Amino acid sequence: MRDVLVLTTGGTIEKVHDWQTEGLGFEMGGKAQIADLLHNARCYHAALRELMMKDSLDFTDADRQAILDAVVAADESAIVVSQGTGTMELTARFLDGEVGEKTVVLTGAMCPHSFGRSDASFNMGGAVIAAQTLPAGVYGVMNGRVFAAGELRKNTQAGRFDLPSA
Amino acid sequence: MRDVLVLTTGGTIEKVHDWQTEGLGFEMGGKAQIADLLHNARCYHAALRELMMKDSLDFTDADRQAILDAVVAADESAIVVSQGTGTMELTARFLDGEVGEKTVVLTGAMCPHSFGRSDASFNMGGAVIAAQTLPAGVYGVMNGRVFAAGELRKNTQAGRFDLPSA
Amino acid sequence: MRDVLVLTTGGTIEKVHDWQTEGLGFEMGGKAQIADLLHNARCYHAALRELMMKDSLDFTDADRQAILDAVVAADESAIVVSQGTGTMELTARFLDGEVGEKTVVLTGAMCPHSFGRSDASFNMGGAVIAAQTLPAGVYGVMNGRVFAAGELRKNTQAGRFDLPSA
Amino acid sequence: MRDVLVLTTGGTIEKVHDWQTEGLGFEMGGKAQIADLLHNARCYHAALRELMMKDSLDFTDADRQAILDAVVAADESAIVVSQGTGTMELTARFLDGEVGEKTVVLTGAMCPHSFGRSDASFNMGGAVIAAQTLPAGVYGVMNGRVFAAGELRKNTQAGRFDLPSA
Repeated sequence: MRDVLVLTTGGTIEKVHDWQTEGLGFEMGGKAQIADLLHNARCYHAALRELMMKDSLDFTDADRQAILDAVVAADESAIVVSQGTGTMELTARFLDGEVGEKTVVLTGAMCPHSFGRSDASFNMGGAVIAAQTLPAGVYGVMNGRVFAAGELRKNTQAGRFDLPSA
Repeated sequence: MRDVLVLTTGGTIEKVHDWQTEGLGFEMGGKAQIADLLHNARCYHAALRELMMKDSLDFTDADRQAILDAVVAADESAIVVSQGTGTMELTARFLDGEVGEKTVVLTGAMCPHSFGRSDASFNMGGAVIAAQTLPAGVYGVMNGRVFAAGELRKNTQAGRFDLPSA
Repeated sequence: MRDVLVLTTGGTIEKVHDWQTEGLGFEMGGKAQIADLLHNARCYHAALRELMMKDSLDFTDADRQAILDAVVAADESAIVVSQGTGTMELTARFLDGEVGEKTVVLTGAMCPHSFGRSDASFNMGGAVIAAQTLPAGVYGVMNGRVFAAGELRKNTQAGRFDLPSA
Repeated sequence: MRDVLVLTTGGTIEKVHDWQTEGLGFEMGGKAQIADLLHNARCYHAALRELMMKDSLDFTDADRQAILDAVVAADESAIVVSQGTGTMELTARFLDGEVGEKTVVLTGAMCPHSFGRSDASFNMGGAVIAAQTLPAGVYGVMNGRVFAAGELRKNTQAGRFDLPSA
């Protein structure tokens, strides 16, 4: 058991260029972009588990249940869940109140890690720290801010997550 | 006043390629790499101030005093100090106990932000979150871990910061 | 007049991440990725002109005529046309025999320049050299090979351009 | 035998960040940056051979002789020699007139391939094309230009290679 568990589920942060479709897709089978991200970061005390590779807009409650099951089953009490930003707030509400003594931090990216310029490493770096420093509960970390599960809300016009008062 | 103040002082995180010396150097005059890093991260609630551009191995106590003065003078109570890893622990000890009600988080990188693969964004993302979530005091955030000022110690053999027990 | 004219028309090489659609798109209005590419390359003797920003699969004969018109009107005799790989061979056949004393080289990329790892700079570097060294006529340069206009053919299974015999 | 042989000898193009020295160094033992470059470029018809890993300012005539020996011994007649820019013109003069029916193109970079923004792929893309299209002889390809062996001259003030008249 390591100190932190990172569960990756897909989303923008994991997207890579697919030359066959000439669009964005996922690399399946143990080639998660977040493995590359954690390696660059020299973050050796985080374990990575690939739960699924999906757009979060395609998440069903069964997918959210699978995330909750993985959280509950984990030996680690500091857990990062990486997913698409589109329904991050739905996952937060789904998990909220169900994670016991664990600290669960949702994160993701507005631009894939595979691009030359991305917010992926910054967000993941914040989420890994938040998972170790915040009290038990469910949170989101995006773009340098911590959000309580109930406050997490994507501003789809501006491409960021704002505080409720902002 | 923004929510977080980032003070950059140079160090590996700020290094760029200098084609004239064919080595690494700094870009002076408002071209901090951390400005680019925060822009990629969409971290709009952090203000950036360039304090100096030096290798931390060249830091004198006058430099550390300048950092402390900037911390004390800041309106923000959440402050990240970015510097070289070589003497990060000396700065931590210098600041420790002198920052009052502020949370000051030291960070940096083992590989410059200007490279294709770097730990810079991950570390800065963690430091920005730690500065907002930890109690007042002085800390280091590197490679996904938080260190108390007295525990911060670079493992120069392994190229990372280890916990005291590790 | 510079030594080489680069006409950009869009295609994969110019694609950037569009966080609003969460897919790939173009940056309009003088923000061509190829400007960034040529700047990194220190290729100061090439002029860049943005002709359109389209997927080459959407090219009509009117678009190809616009490319030919720009080639014919150019003061430069060494011309690179950058476009999507999907219909590069159609543009080659359209231009072939119509460019007089000019050397016209088509190029593009299988992966956008905006990604961390791309074939864009390599292909463009080859095309700029070919435009200055080959006799008048129409060619394609992709992945380190020169193709005569009549031989240019995308291997959509393998994601590359092969020689006729290959 | 492939169509093109690339001989790498070190130089700025091959430099990587060395966290132990906090400067630039080489990765030894089959980890040439140019292997990564050619892979990104999908340039499958070029063979890569690592001849040495040195700064070109440290080249001796014995090193230049080793390059010439490798050129003469090669089965390929299209050969790219990658090296530091500092003494590229000395290698060009050393090889000039000695390569028989082969086309030998010298190239390199002002900024290492391992940085986020580099001229490495652009230069290598041009050199690979020049090696296949120019008559037998010795040339340099840098920043989108072809130089005859006798004309190759680094403008150390401007960080580029200029034409004699420029």
